[in-house]
Amino acid sequence: MIDQIERALEEIKFGPDGLVPAIAQQHDTGEVLMMAWMNREAVRASLAEGRACYWSRSRATLWRKGETSGQVQHLRELRLDCDGDAVLLLVDQRGVACHTGRRSCFFRAWRNGDWATIAKPQISPDMLYPEKG
Amino acid sequence: MIDQIERALEEIKFGPDGLVPAIAQQHDTGEVLMMAWMNREAVRASLAEGRACYWSRSRATLWRKGETSGQVQHLRELRLDCDGDAVLLLVDQRGVACHTGRRSCFFRAWRNGDWATIAKPQISPDMLYPEKG
Repeated sequence: MIDQIERALEEIKFGPDGLVPAIAQQHDTGEVLMMAWMNREAVRASLAEGRACYWSRSRATLWRKGETSGQVQHLRELRLDCDGDAVLLLVDQRGVACHTGRRSCFFRAWRNGDWATIAKPQISPDMLYPEKG
Repeated sequence: MIDQIERALEEIKFGPDGLVPAIAQQHDTGEVLMMAWMNREAVRASLAEGRACYWSRSRATLWRKGETSGQVQHLRELRLDCDGDAVLLLVDQRGVACHTGRRSCFFRAWRNGDWATIAKPQISPDMLYPEKG
């Protein structure tokens, strides 16, 4: 398994900062949930554990999606683009992807000359991150 | 219109390199077609012209998707994520998005310990870029 994962990593072209952009998409509905970053360790952890792990640039640490909020992304399939410098994670998102409590992070749409909020929170952020309350 | 577009730009957080990651998704099927980069000028051009324009990092130039290949991406809607540092383009992709002639750039899937090619070209790259032939 570890050897296999190292072979997966060989085809991924990480940037100068060691990161590759990662798109998370709900596997059945096709909804784009979020965009984040992965380093080699995040890809290793995601494949080994079957759940999406990212690299948090703001916290400079591995970030197992849902470890605090419970909103885990179960990894259904990892995909790689033609240039090898972007990955697409097909996931089964438990609950919501966005820290605002919305299903998708892409909840602002440019309509009629303004940014419109097109989705409501499904859960209060206070419920997702009670320790911050 | 120009004032409106400048207002759109105000909410987008471009990185230190002046770029923001951009995901292109087919508006009706939900298929993730590609991931590329936009600078301020690319966003301006996309909104003004109603077609996806990116910034080509390799060529260091504005890249009107389809200007060479004819595979234009008509822009249906621009969306912005919670942090303002990633955009999602809902597009109507004419033909194929990938320079290999495949519909989506994400045609490699990690399955059974190897990268599997899960889509075939719909058109020969020689047809897309005849001047390279």
